[in-house]
Amino acid sequence: MADNLRIALAGVGTVGAGVVRLLEENGSLIAKRAGRTIEVVAVSARDRAKDRGVDLSAYDWEDDMTAFAARGDVDVVVELVGGSDGPALALARKALENGKSLVTANKAMVAHHGLELAQLAEQSGAALRYEAAVAGGIPAIKGLGEGAAANRIERIYGILNGTCNYILSEMESTGRDFADVLAEAQALGYAEADPTFDIEGVDAAHKLSILAALGFGTRLDFASVDTSGISRIRAADIAQADALGYVIRLIGLADVSGSEESLQLFQRVAPYLVAKDHPLAGVSGPTNAVVCEGNFSGRLLFEGAGAGDGPTASAVVADLIDIARGSTPPPFSIPVSALEETAPADPGHRRNRAYIRMVVADKPGVLAEITAAMRDAEVSIESFIQHGQPDGDDAPVLIGMVTHESPEAAVSKALTLLEGSPSLVEEPLVMRLLR
Amino acid sequence: MADNLRIALAGVGTVGAGVVRLLEENGSLIAKRAGRTIEVVAVSARDRAKDRGVDLSAYDWEDDMTAFAARGDVDVVVELVGGSDGPALALARKALENGKSLVTANKAMVAHHGLELAQLAEQSGAALRYEAAVAGGIPAIKGLGEGAAANRIERIYGILNGTCNYILSEMESTGRDFADVLAEAQALGYAEADPTFDIEGVDAAHKLSILAALGFGTRLDFASVDTSGISRIRAADIAQADALGYVIRLIGLADVSGSEESLQLFQRVAPYLVAKDHPLAGVSGPTNAVVCEGNFSGRLLFEGAGAGDGPTASAVVADLIDIARGSTPPPFSIPVSALEETAPADPGHRRNRAYIRMVVADKPGVLAEITAAMRDAEVSIESFIQHGQPDGDDAPVLIGMVTHESPEAAVSKALTLLEGSPSLVEEPLVMRLLR
Repeated sequence: MADNLRIALAGVGTVGAGVVRLLEENGSLIAKRAGRTIEVVAVSARDRAKDRGVDLSAYDWEDDMTAFAARGDVDVVVELVGGSDGPALALARKALENGKSLVTANKAMVAHHGLELAQLAEQSGAALRYEAAVAGGIPAIKGLGEGAAANRIERIYGILNGTCNYILSEMESTGRDFADVLAEAQALGYAEADPTFDIEGVDAAHKLSILAALGFGTRLDFASVDTSGISRIRAADIAQADALGYVIRLIGLADVSGSEESLQLFQRVAPYLVAKDHPLAGVSGPTNAVVCEGNFSGRLLFEGAGAGDGPTASAVVADLIDIARGSTPPPFSIPVSALEETAPADPGHRRNRAYIRMVVADKPGVLAEITAAMRDAEVSIESFIQHGQPDGDDAPVLIGMVTHESPEAAVSKALTLLEGSPSLVEEPLVMRLLR
Repeated sequence: MADNLRIALAGVGTVGAGVVRLLEENGSLIAKRAGRTIEVVAVSARDRAKDRGVDLSAYDWEDDMTAFAARGDVDVVVELVGGSDGPALALARKALENGKSLVTANKAMVAHHGLELAQLAEQSGAALRYEAAVAGGIPAIKGLGEGAAANRIERIYGILNGTCNYILSEMESTGRDFADVLAEAQALGYAEADPTFDIEGVDAAHKLSILAALGFGTRLDFASVDTSGISRIRAADIAQADALGYVIRLIGLADVSGSEESLQLFQRVAPYLVAKDHPLAGVSGPTNAVVCEGNFSGRLLFEGAGAGDGPTASAVVADLIDIARGSTPPPFSIPVSALEETAPADPGHRRNRAYIRMVVADKPGVLAEITAAMRDAEVSIESFIQHGQPDGDDAPVLIGMVTHESPEAAVSKALTLLEGSPSLVEEPLVMRLLR
């Protein structure tokens, strides 16, 4: 058996403690699979005294984790600190520059700086692995970058944020409203105290941009992900979608189009209506799922726990086993210099069916005004739901409609025509139907 | 870029032609991902003149494919001939002995001779890869052997035969009977002229035994897979399962139990009742799905096309890319000498809920006899369906019942008590409920 693979752990929160526990509990099995022992030599975290449920006394303690990058007895730095910049990035750069491999669960850092880090890794011959950064315990990075590597990937989409999926499926099964379910999720620890990154789609956008670069062989472009979240979704939207045969899921979706000389990259995170017989409709709770469509493989789906200490530790240690085995393809499957440049796609030409929800004043002529705007924008309406209310109740009314397939620009035009109309009590909400 | 990876293709049926087409169509992308060109240097098949829709004239032709093993210009032999023994096995042995890597889609050969071949590969330093042998285009071998490698795998199960799944879901959606749907599947080319291996569960058993060895780190034991097929399932069973909230799927399921000194391996292929809200219930048509439960990852699911030239070629070429990249873990994830010995588990103690279908004579006392046997075997019945028929019609009657959780031995005892009874017109059919 070869020498031990010696790792240093930066950040010992729930995931870091999970990694320690996993290496202890499954250590002998992992040594057999990896061909050598994976040995924790040093750890670093903010608070040394904190009880993490695992015994860290056997490992060297570093107050300053950047020291890992200089230690001669460390082969791999495992970065579980988080944050796109700051100490995590400083450590990552230094480790890779010094030829130490880096395993990270840090989606924000990879989304913002993945190409720079991959280039550092290429230069020094170190490995950069980030399975745990996308879709928790699911080997989606491996599935896309290795399992589907024979394919031109035509489309990638999935449920990439467990918090949103938990909230949406709770709303679905209980009929409760967003704010109510969010508050409960926070109390239960399923949502952060500041849930913005999750519920506004930023976390899913980080992951989507990583999957897109890896799958399409294009340069990472987090900045151009068209991102919206779930905070405006109401119980009534879910009920209307249900009546039409759909559930609502926060979906990250990406594709490439155009010729090799001028590639357009489309990346969107948004709530979509998903037909109940689609495999993603059955994905509920904090589960994640990633779908890729290859030109030979057809549709491949990977599903599992999207977060949690056990699943995330499983992904981190899978990366370590690959490094121990010497299985280290380029971080983005092809060398950074060979990744294609793209321009952000203009979504105006994309043809979709769309669900449009409006809250309107309950007075004569409103429907005529809305349907005229739709006609003038050449958007044709396939179905329409308005629940009546008793005579004399003139509270605003919620209406939902589903359009026939139309260019997104046409739907935008219809909404522009209605902008400022006193008939609309609030801004309309548009959700596309997932194909 | 490194030297080309030079391959020889043994067998150019639909999958082999798919591999050639894939390497042509995606060749430059694959070269970028693999770090070098994957080059077909020679091919061999039974009939040189046959039109396969791809041009083979650029490649050397060998009438005798075993010649590949001796060619100095071949790095990898791709075996797509099939059959557990015979020419495929002779070629595989010779190639590996000579230090040539082997990529195969041959589940029968791997199930019967996988350990011997893996040992030859270890000895000569060659790679042995078989992603295409299990679950078509789905990277299930990679998912289990690499993606989930950090875990003690506790259970593996899935839908492993596309022909059976197609037939069952057709029966489900049309209400037609088995023989009728099978005949149609044969006419459409979804089932072989001799469908025995598929419909009697042998093909799924091949795949299950491979997954079990890989996932559990145990020695391959195809011979002890408890195998039954779908040919006795009737439209009425599917209707009764539906009424109870289930669909019927042919499931391969394996787990290990016992201590490290005396491991018991349970492997079964059989039709199961699957609750409609289980992810496998939504898997219909020729789709496959593999689930593994890891002690840290939790449940991971991999789903995609279970067969077809495109998906299978995608899996074959993924293996080639791994070899080109130098990513070649041991064929069964750990070296053959370290795989654990197991004994076949006695299923008698397994506690399951079971669906039992009987065809009984329509005369007084029959139900009393059956329920007495159940009582005497201590099997308690949870639900019972018998559809009445008009007075005066004394044709045999089909009854279906679901038991509470009971040891399998108890259900067997009840059926033994009823053996030879004139009340039973044919042998009862037992299907377990998937947990």
